Amino acid sequence: MDIEKQIALINKQINNSGFQKDPAELYEPIRYFLKNSGKRLRPLLTLFGCYLFTDDIAKALKPGIGIEIFHNFTLVHDDIMDKAPIRRGSKTVHEKWDQNIAILSGDTMLFKAYDYLIQVDKDLIFKIISSFNDCAVEVCEGQQHDMNFETRSNVSEEEYISMIRAKTASLLGFSLKLGALIGGATDADAENLRNFGLSLGIGFQLKDDLLDVYGEAHKFGKRVGGDIIANKKTYLLIQALNLSNSSQRERLQYWLQKDEPADEKVKEVTKIYNEIGIKELTESKMDEFFNSGFQYLDQVKCETERKEKLNDFSKKLIHRDS
Amino acid sequence: MDIEKQIALINKQINNSGFQKDPAELYEPIRYFLKNSGKRLRPLLTLFGCYLFTDDIAKALKPGIGIEIFHNFTLVHDDIMDKAPIRRGSKTVHEKWDQNIAILSGDTMLFKAYDYLIQVDKDLIFKIISSFNDCAVEVCEGQQHDMNFETRSNVSEEEYISMIRAKTASLLGFSLKLGALIGGATDADAENLRNFGLSLGIGFQLKDDLLDVYGEAHKFGKRVGGDIIANKKTYLLIQALNLSNSSQRERLQYWLQKDEPADEKVKEVTKIYNEIGIKELTESKMDEFFNSGFQYLDQVKCETERKEKLNDFSKKLIHRDS
Repeated sequence: MDIEKQIALINKQINNSGFQKDPAELYEPIRYFLKNSGKRLRPLLTLFGCYLFTDDIAKALKPGIGIEIFHNFTLVHDDIMDKAPIRRGSKTVHEKWDQNIAILSGDTMLFKAYDYLIQVDKDLIFKIISSFNDCAVEVCEGQQHDMNFETRSNVSEEEYISMIRAKTASLLGFSLKLGALIGGATDADAENLRNFGLSLGIGFQLKDDLLDVYGEAHKFGKRVGGDIIANKKTYLLIQALNLSNSSQRERLQYWLQKDEPADEKVKEVTKIYNEIGIKELTESKMDEFFNSGFQYLDQVKCETERKEKLNDFSKKLIHRDS
Repeated sequence: MDIEKQIALINKQINNSGFQKDPAELYEPIRYFLKNSGKRLRPLLTLFGCYLFTDDIAKALKPGIGIEIFHNFTLVHDDIMDKAPIRRGSKTVHEKWDQNIAILSGDTMLFKAYDYLIQVDKDLIFKIISSFNDCAVEVCEGQQHDMNFETRSNVSEEEYISMIRAKTASLLGFSLKLGALIGGATDADAENLRNFGLSLGIGFQLKDDLLDVYGEAHKFGKRVGGDIIANKKTYLLIQALNLSNSSQRERLQYWLQKDEPADEKVKEVTKIYNEIGIKELTESKMDEFFNSGFQYLDQVKCETERKEKLNDFSKKLIHRDS
């Protein structure tokens, strides 16, 4: 499992994935968005899931591309809903073209995603598409809950975890499960890997939330405190709202209603977080999920060496500081 | 093939199709839109396609529901793109709720559509999903062309036919093909039925275009000339632009730039259509497609009586005057 080589194969396949067609208004945005790559984490997980059980990982490549296209579809549509102007340093599709094109290009990506996902052994298609549909519906439900949270002041910790499980983590879980099924895993091991991916995904999101406030700006590549400035309902803010005493809560509410001065807002909200101990709380929650994830991985029955590689890969992702 | 009974079964299945879930913001719009029924033409065609080859049409019901959900997904998203306030006499989803909810509810419908579509014999799934993906991509391409046409003054007859083939007719063709494959048709006959549906679909769209101008208002249930008022690029307008002499074209351009008085606009544009003979031209094009469609149906190898029933059903659709 040579990761750099596999990323090159993934990118090559994506660049040849049949989006060189007419009408240009539909396909150019798709090529543009897919090229502006990201880490290709999901197809890598699919390849890893397969690799645990067989050397023939080539057969997991196309279904993995399906996941990557689906993931990018969700980003194109989410960016419309979130009115996000920038994604991965470039203009979002609805911003560079227009909203109608972003809706329709997104839809088209989705059909292409299914076209890749069915490139598996015939006797696996039903199981794979059926699980994928469940996962995709979860992603939509998660996005809806996330939007609902924006106007609510009483989101509980459980609700937040459940939202990120659906919106973000479930696809990571499915990516691994997909590869495992293709590689010939038992249903039990495919499920163990899905649970591993789910826990990892929740942990990653908590880490993202944390890095926004406590990351080092130059490594993170984003403005520190962007979530604070935008009043984004992260784990940190939700827990601060839930755990603050009345004077802290009053100060928090004061800053939630103010946009400026942004630097002072970040500083003051961070100060409240520090008083409550939000950093340690988030770290401990994050570790809880990472640990429970690795317990699922432990249970998978496959060659230890192979599992070690997935273990190492995951640990690197966990310890990234940007 | 008792049509009323089948429609009742379709509606019952749709009302129980698993959209009674949380979050309400996601699922209520889906239930609302699917209930406001329409003619259920596509699942009926799927059932008919199956019926030609077997009495066991129950097995075509769920995949047919998949097509109906997909069709409604396209309407929810198209309504956003077209900024349409009303569909089938009720508010559109983005109008009754908001645009984000319409995007996301639409996406969710799509995953559910696939969930129904894979409810077929395991050895058919690949073929069915693969053809369906092609058809769905065509629908998107057709919608993009349709949007492109709005700002173009030189759309050719061929381009228009090709657009409605993709946007509207291809799904009718696939609906029949799907049923045929489920019923055990040969690939050749499944393809004959797809071509029958395609031709029928193009004919229906031409008829729709015609009824807007030459239909009887009280039967049609819409304002006569709505397409004229909206400058919609129908077959009639496109052909009038292509075939008018310079003085007719000048008058046409004059009215294309005016919204008011609407009644006069309808009257004057219709007058130009009459001078050019657009009605007869459209009727003859429409008949050409209907005739070529029935030639495909003729070629299908199945019991004559069964074919007669599909023939009668199609003729009734063709001769509707509303």
